[in-house]
Amino acid sequence: MEESDKKKINAQKKQERHFLSINNISKILFNEILERAESFQVQGTREIKKLPLLRGKTVANLFFEPSTRTRTTFELAAKKLSADVINIDIQTSATRKGESLKDTLRTLESMQTDIFIVRHPESGAAKFIAELVGDHVSVINAGDGRHEHPTQAMVDMFTIRKNKRNFSDLIVSIVGDVNHSRVARSEIHALKLVGTKEIRVVGPKTLIPDQIEKLGVRAFFSLDEGLKDADVIIALRLQRERMQSALLPSEKEYYRCFGLTQERLKLAKKDAIVMHPGPINRGIEIESSVADGAQSVILEQVSNGITVRMAVMAILSALKYQK
Amino acid sequence: MEESDKKKINAQKKQERHFLSINNISKILFNEILERAESFQVQGTREIKKLPLLRGKTVANLFFEPSTRTRTTFELAAKKLSADVINIDIQTSATRKGESLKDTLRTLESMQTDIFIVRHPESGAAKFIAELVGDHVSVINAGDGRHEHPTQAMVDMFTIRKNKRNFSDLIVSIVGDVNHSRVARSEIHALKLVGTKEIRVVGPKTLIPDQIEKLGVRAFFSLDEGLKDADVIIALRLQRERMQSALLPSEKEYYRCFGLTQERLKLAKKDAIVMHPGPINRGIEIESSVADGAQSVILEQVSNGITVRMAVMAILSALKYQK
Amino acid sequence: MEESDKKKINAQKKQERHFLSINNISKILFNEILERAESFQVQGTREIKKLPLLRGKTVANLFFEPSTRTRTTFELAAKKLSADVINIDIQTSATRKGESLKDTLRTLESMQTDIFIVRHPESGAAKFIAELVGDHVSVINAGDGRHEHPTQAMVDMFTIRKNKRNFSDLIVSIVGDVNHSRVARSEIHALKLVGTKEIRVVGPKTLIPDQIEKLGVRAFFSLDEGLKDADVIIALRLQRERMQSALLPSEKEYYRCFGLTQERLKLAKKDAIVMHPGPINRGIEIESSVADGAQSVILEQVSNGITVRMAVMAILSALKYQK
Repeated sequence: MEESDKKKINAQKKQERHFLSINNISKILFNEILERAESFQVQGTREIKKLPLLRGKTVANLFFEPSTRTRTTFELAAKKLSADVINIDIQTSATRKGESLKDTLRTLESMQTDIFIVRHPESGAAKFIAELVGDHVSVINAGDGRHEHPTQAMVDMFTIRKNKRNFSDLIVSIVGDVNHSRVARSEIHALKLVGTKEIRVVGPKTLIPDQIEKLGVRAFFSLDEGLKDADVIIALRLQRERMQSALLPSEKEYYRCFGLTQERLKLAKKDAIVMHPGPINRGIEIESSVADGAQSVILEQVSNGITVRMAVMAILSALKYQK
Repeated sequence: MEESDKKKINAQKKQERHFLSINNISKILFNEILERAESFQVQGTREIKKLPLLRGKTVANLFFEPSTRTRTTFELAAKKLSADVINIDIQTSATRKGESLKDTLRTLESMQTDIFIVRHPESGAAKFIAELVGDHVSVINAGDGRHEHPTQAMVDMFTIRKNKRNFSDLIVSIVGDVNHSRVARSEIHALKLVGTKEIRVVGPKTLIPDQIEKLGVRAFFSLDEGLKDADVIIALRLQRERMQSALLPSEKEYYRCFGLTQERLKLAKKDAIVMHPGPINRGIEIESSVADGAQSVILEQVSNGITVRMAVMAILSALKYQK
Repeated sequence: MEESDKKKINAQKKQERHFLSINNISKILFNEILERAESFQVQGTREIKKLPLLRGKTVANLFFEPSTRTRTTFELAAKKLSADVINIDIQTSATRKGESLKDTLRTLESMQTDIFIVRHPESGAAKFIAELVGDHVSVINAGDGRHEHPTQAMVDMFTIRKNKRNFSDLIVSIVGDVNHSRVARSEIHALKLVGTKEIRVVGPKTLIPDQIEKLGVRAFFSLDEGLKDADVIIALRLQRERMQSALLPSEKEYYRCFGLTQERLKLAKKDAIVMHPGPINRGIEIESSVADGAQSVILEQVSNGITVRMAVMAILSALKYQK
């Protein structure tokens, strides 16, 4: 690489101390995360190396919304990098004594925390927090409202790349409640960035946003049509609350129309892979035999969840100390 | 040791990736655990070495039943071996989002967890889980219903061996609610394996299983008789729920008949040791002055709880990577 | 240093295996803590070194009263020293199974715990626990009732020393609910030990202890008078419960009389620093613009909270192994 290119890369990177969304991420950082994640796996095995890259650094999990799965993945990823991890149950602690969010953040920051992992029920919360914190803190968005869940999208791009060749040859179908899904939003940005041949969203009209085609995707209101010739199928988790909110008739009815069954899977390419961000609702979004079948890479996504999050943390941490 | 013996040992060991019960454990593994535990103590002190044996490995505590004591012991043991530890409160997390146990396990497994420590209110749960998990995961039973609590039995065998000479000379009396005790069940298997001279169970008829003598133990319904000439007395914890269930008249009445008092202790051998898996109910199973007295090794059991559990984890981990 | 001095220091230090109060602490230990804390900061930066001083040691947080902030600070400090940390929520665990406090402590102690960090709602609880534990355990008081919060006082002395020259030239005003404040009590002892020129307590008569002047401080019932020419102002947290207990009229009224506003701050020395142990109640004890202003060192106190607690743990640990 030329010296001038390196400089350009560094300049770009410096803008990106936080990891808040896939929208507007630089392609350089995007690729660097995928390469780095690859390097964390022990050649030819499922094992992940323990590395000293974040030794002496502190990672704080700030979860304003409960999530054992995502929290545990970040916790393990940080520990694999030798960081010290603290879990703050922000609902019970900070507000309890009447302290403002800003004061809680400033306090944690003053405790020499280096990375905040933030999950919050409101869209934009991670960005809001990123604007409040000091220069030495990086914020990683672990899901904010309906907005984005950027590390999950990175995990999924990594998983697709491990299983398929070029994104420019792929048809990817995202199936389910696209409207309420931060995962779907991040996936769409990511799939566009890598030049995916065709991005589809598939679901009932009530759960597909109006004018979604402006994002450069094709909308399908029939699962059969949406799956046709697909290379990658990403089933979204159905929030059961939607049932009660009259947006959906019933779980049974949803499964009948949009459940990913073995029968329907045959409409996709023969070697299509099936993905799901988890936790799965068997018999609602997906038939059990599909979730556990040969085409499913759902558990591979979970494994990749550790290495990709390690990569994000390692890169953000290195960027800060380059400055 | 001959090469052929080594091979035999290895073959046997390979069957034992999990640690689920004392029943049917090989004598070789049994002894190896005790030897290994011994090696973890700093010569001549109570201190335990910090070792890198599980560095880079992840241990997950899956407790379906609350237990600060056992969980903490496993957590400390794993940390002393340099493992990363995650505590999953399985009651609040997995079921909450409607995920099945199987999916929760597969997810944790995909997060590169190496050892699951499982406590569950139902007998057989640890075995059930061991059958679900993949090849790279070891399951350790930390107590399943009334079935077994095998690491506690190992801790107690280790403690007896440190205080007494040969099991073939010893009379061991297990006193209390044998019927509901997973500890008692594991102890009996262990004491038989090591060729204990005489194993006694002592308690009210309602709390001693029918036909227990088929296990090769002698049953006593009088404490005085059961203690006579005993070398080791293991008092069991009385679950207070039993009182309400009409199996027992009252705590006072229980103490009067089966409480281990200083007076009664005199019936045992002069150098008899007193054990209890904890937490103790003072004035119910045991008189305070006995629990704190010179013959008590109750706190030694707690200390040994760390080293013996380190040994189990270190050996299981080594076995896997030998394959 | 002469050999005889060293011996004297060691003799003194050996009395101090625990860290329970500032009252009666030796000046040698006091200064050693401040020096040591200084050494833990990376020269010229806010970064704190990760050190192996407590490697292989176990620190247990025993919190009988909730406190995310103090618990997290101790947890991070211990981890920076490479200790293994366990958090015991003593309310839900020990008492639940009917175990006595003494048995819980003895059990934790037998698990090879080296340092207990104790917070308890009752005055004297830390001392009580220190008397129960064995020789190899150190107890650190993290706040006991209205009695003392000695590590907070050390943090504050460290912070004052970093910002000012000689205590013998300083006027320090402690403002607020002195009567219920363990922080205030520890601060007064500390400020006296270092020979502070003038120590003031400032607040409404209902919240200043009778005869407090016997402690060698001056009492002021007017904020304006109490702030005059002060070099250091320590605002105390107002427990909102006091409002309901008729000791105080209302938050608004309190703020009007004793709230630290920008206007009032002008009465103090021009270069006075403003401190608060946190969490702050903006608009009650302190005006937001003062808390965030140029004279505030409140967040510096939080940072110093890590290094000073590291120093206390490192020194106690070294003392034990000298014996």
